[in-house]
Amino acid sequence: MNDQNDTLSVILFSGTDDKLGAAAVLVSGAAAMGRRVDILLQYWALEAFRAGATRKDHGVSPEGGPEGAAALARLADKGAQHWSDLFAVAKDVGEVAIHACAQSMELFGLEKSDLDPIVDDVEGVAAFILEAEGQMVFI
Amino acid sequence: MNDQNDTLSVILFSGTDDKLGAAAVLVSGAAAMGRRVDILLQYWALEAFRAGATRKDHGVSPEGGPEGAAALARLADKGAQHWSDLFAVAKDVGEVAIHACAQSMELFGLEKSDLDPIVDDVEGVAAFILEAEGQMVFI
Amino acid sequence: MNDQNDTLSVILFSGTDDKLGAAAVLVSGAAAMGRRVDILLQYWALEAFRAGATRKDHGVSPEGGPEGAAALARLADKGAQHWSDLFAVAKDVGEVAIHACAQSMELFGLEKSDLDPIVDDVEGVAAFILEAEGQMVFI
Repeated sequence: MNDQNDTLSVILFSGTDDKLGAAAVLVSGAAAMGRRVDILLQYWALEAFRAGATRKDHGVSPEGGPEGAAALARLADKGAQHWSDLFAVAKDVGEVAIHACAQSMELFGLEKSDLDPIVDDVEGVAAFILEAEGQMVFI
Repeated sequence: MNDQNDTLSVILFSGTDDKLGAAAVLVSGAAAMGRRVDILLQYWALEAFRAGATRKDHGVSPEGGPEGAAALARLADKGAQHWSDLFAVAKDVGEVAIHACAQSMELFGLEKSDLDPIVDDVEGVAAFILEAEGQMVFI
Repeated sequence: MNDQNDTLSVILFSGTDDKLGAAAVLVSGAAAMGRRVDILLQYWALEAFRAGATRKDHGVSPEGGPEGAAALARLADKGAQHWSDLFAVAKDVGEVAIHACAQSMELFGLEKSDLDPIVDDVEGVAAFILEAEGQMVFI
């Protein structure tokens, strides 16, 4: 179904550092393989992309526990790239668009100017679906 | 890979109001764009579709925290549509089927009559996969 | 987009018994329908596949609560197959590959020999994406 030029559409809902990290690695990998990537930020992921908030501690999934959080912190201490840097590199390397979900913006009472400049624009879910011509993942 | 007539297949596993809300908006958007949508309710999502249970407070993902829960509650107070209404509208507007996963029904000891009437039927995972001719998301 | 010979690609991130169970049922179903399945273990799912760890209690999603955990435990008492058995059967029945994500291996300081023998090899995200020619789900 998928020739490798198809868009990868990512609905990014979760706002913990582990899931944002997994999403960033997936997006970077796809962009490096020449895939177009379209990201829609919703709910807690949108909150994580607020201006000045990306580098805050966003915690990990409950199942990670204190040990999991410690493993991630160690990685950061060793100089591993933060997920926000990985998204920035992916945008430099490939054709990656980051949209804020219009419905979630309304939910949290946010304006475009409240968001980190890495976010390209505000888009509704219907428009996002219309452009989703390849795989779609919900993270 | 995807012409816009392909089915969107949604495995709906999570039963918190934030994820159910995100799923409802995705399904509504796809239905409004003329996409067929096939939903398989599993585990905690299935529990949220029990008869009489849809409008209960199902909480939010832990990462949402009390602030996130408050944001969702404010939205409801402002008259925003509940996710259960959005699914109902999507079924009216488009070709949307809501199946209860046979394996999860057994897990929780449920019968079809225990579920909200918006659920169409009980279906096994294999049958669901067989009909999944387009994008598949797990929420 | 999808003829039924396409690969189903599963990014398995979560490490709780409920999500691992849902993933195992999905993978078994797809394999039984003759679909090739490619699984990439990340983060907490990778931890759940450590040698000697698969049958430990990995808990359930917070939304499941004590009641949900009890429902899963009852199922096990009734002799239902454990998710690790379901993955093993799927590998016997069909063409199912289980890869450990190279980035997550580094994150947790793991070697291939630290993992359950059901894991086939270690693979980077880019290689996984390159082989992902069908639906992709993130669990």
